[in-house]
Amino acid sequence: MDNPEKSANRAETEVLVCVKCLRGLDAPEDGARPGQKLYDELIQREMPEGVTIRPMECLQNCDSGCSVAIRGGDARWTYVYGNFLESSHPDMLAEGIALYHETDDGLIPWRSRPEHFKRNCIARIPPVTKKEA
Amino acid sequence: MDNPEKSANRAETEVLVCVKCLRGLDAPEDGARPGQKLYDELIQREMPEGVTIRPMECLQNCDSGCSVAIRGGDARWTYVYGNFLESSHPDMLAEGIALYHETDDGLIPWRSRPEHFKRNCIARIPPVTKKEA
Repeated sequence: MDNPEKSANRAETEVLVCVKCLRGLDAPEDGARPGQKLYDELIQREMPEGVTIRPMECLQNCDSGCSVAIRGGDARWTYVYGNFLESSHPDMLAEGIALYHETDDGLIPWRSRPEHFKRNCIARIPPVTKKEA
Repeated sequence: MDNPEKSANRAETEVLVCVKCLRGLDAPEDGARPGQKLYDELIQREMPEGVTIRPMECLQNCDSGCSVAIRGGDARWTYVYGNFLESSHPDMLAEGIALYHETDDGLIPWRSRPEHFKRNCIARIPPVTKKEA
């Protein structure tokens, strides 16, 4: 059940998709890189209000592309996830983004976290407000 | 040459050291993990004014620990670097932190970037102010 009051106060969520990612492949002749294709697919998915998908330059996770960073607000952990396939993963990624957006701290409960997120977390960055372990 | 005016306006730099990191080793009997040792070494180094070193819980870069995230201000890229050795790398890491702190955007010029930073960048996150590739 959604709590409208909580929802109104929820931080914006930004999803940064590396559109330069080649995912280890040669540069395609048609010019559309895997990262760009992932972005193009993702922006066609329905997203909760407050979620913005942005094309971004290299996130320097090139060995484990395609790469996506998810962040939002000073109180949430930022996550970098990798190894996305532009063809088969956009729906799963969209689900994960929606789950992240539901959180106050960026921590999707383990039980509901997509399996791909569990296995392909590249790194996470603490909230700005977090001052110690 | 340092520019005092620029220096005065420089954003604070935060260095987040994962103190839980085992660096692929078994948990040590004396209780001091590699990540904790790296933190303990690092805080003994001289740092420029405006740099804060913080102990942090898991940054989920466990396959490439020890791990450090460096960030500061809304206009700088955040970097996650990995594969630090607590015994031999603290001086080099301290140098790299000082170089990052000198920048407005978080991008240490390639020529002066420590070799370890070039080869062990796990990922980077764009500045909050960056809205597109």
